[in-house]
Amino acid sequence: MPQLILIRHGQSQWNLENRFTGWWDVDVTEKGAAEAWAAGELMKAKGIAPDVGFTSVQTRAIKTMNLALEAMGRLWLPVTKDWHLNERHYGGLTGLDKAETAAKHGDDQVKIWRRSFDVPPPPLDPGSPWDLSHDPRYAGIAVPATESLKDTIARVLPYYESAIVPELKAGKTVLVSAHGNSLRALVKHLSGISDADITGLEIPTGQPIVYDLAADLTPGERYYLSER
Amino acid sequence: MPQLILIRHGQSQWNLENRFTGWWDVDVTEKGAAEAWAAGELMKAKGIAPDVGFTSVQTRAIKTMNLALEAMGRLWLPVTKDWHLNERHYGGLTGLDKAETAAKHGDDQVKIWRRSFDVPPPPLDPGSPWDLSHDPRYAGIAVPATESLKDTIARVLPYYESAIVPELKAGKTVLVSAHGNSLRALVKHLSGISDADITGLEIPTGQPIVYDLAADLTPGERYYLSER
Repeated sequence: MPQLILIRHGQSQWNLENRFTGWWDVDVTEKGAAEAWAAGELMKAKGIAPDVGFTSVQTRAIKTMNLALEAMGRLWLPVTKDWHLNERHYGGLTGLDKAETAAKHGDDQVKIWRRSFDVPPPPLDPGSPWDLSHDPRYAGIAVPATESLKDTIARVLPYYESAIVPELKAGKTVLVSAHGNSLRALVKHLSGISDADITGLEIPTGQPIVYDLAADLTPGERYYLSER
Repeated sequence: MPQLILIRHGQSQWNLENRFTGWWDVDVTEKGAAEAWAAGELMKAKGIAPDVGFTSVQTRAIKTMNLALEAMGRLWLPVTKDWHLNERHYGGLTGLDKAETAAKHGDDQVKIWRRSFDVPPPPLDPGSPWDLSHDPRYAGIAVPATESLKDTIARVLPYYESAIVPELKAGKTVLVSAHGNSLRALVKHLSGISDADITGLEIPTGQPIVYDLAADLTPGERYYLSER
């Protein structure tokens, strides 16, 4: 039967520094790399054998995928990297730490941006040092200036339907290594979580989340692999 | 204009131990990983920016690709992994070191197997510990029992034509991370080397070899990037 495993990248440098990251390409920390390796070892120990992988075009998710696959002895798996699985774009908050953001915009406003479903942060200035519109990995792609969670979902789900669902329909085990908000998009869809509740759902780093699916892709309850 | 960069995986554990490896999935050594990283740094320093990557399904070539791409800041590149780029299958010699092989088969015979174009080593025994026919990465593939260099070329070149040539025709820079003999196949084809001469051509580990190509894919002279 098809199986979908979701894994949020291991701790990144900016997770550690508590800065808004979004599309900025921050590496995993040593701890984050160890989390990714441990996730691969856990999958192997539990007999999970992915057939195919999907990840974003962001280094922290790609390295998490590669480390987990290597720990499983499955580095040879076909892996597709696609920007549709990128983290939510944090717009003008990119690069700010939580204290700077609160000082600049006020605690209440920050809480709205972080926790509302459809209010995006202010757009990133085109001249900003965090502007990625000329990054070669996004050639031919309209890099957003900011995104709400709703905007993120609006790009993740069509990609899921067109690229990942066909693999699941073929009965495969699919591993997705991605980000807090791109994974929220998938969990919201599969577990039927409301707009109001999804923003409060935390996805821990480096913890494989599993959906066992029926042949028609009706998902069973989601669970942490570490708890089985 | 299109550009093709070939890189043989960094030193593997069995390169170090002087054992016949072939399709056996041996990891790179610490030195091999450093070679791969240095190759990526060299490409970056020389302004080489691959658009797409191809590698075998063997860990040592995949890790060389990933480390080189990471060193270049291009881990986001699409990379295709395909068994057609695997090392030559060394048949019954797999796992033997050079001294064991000489003791078992005699120096002259070993030289014939290593240096002849079309004489394969004896086939691997089906019950051998080095038998990979049940490895999941080769599901649906007829794993050879042994290969001559000629046999290796006969699978590498059609793959090159069908998968890599279209990328080059589109004007892309293509990075191939592979093995001594699968790269000999490409160099023989592109540089027009004779059957007699190709077996003596050594491909050093971790050294990017470059072909600048005309729009019709006529190759210029090949060169080591480190020498430009």
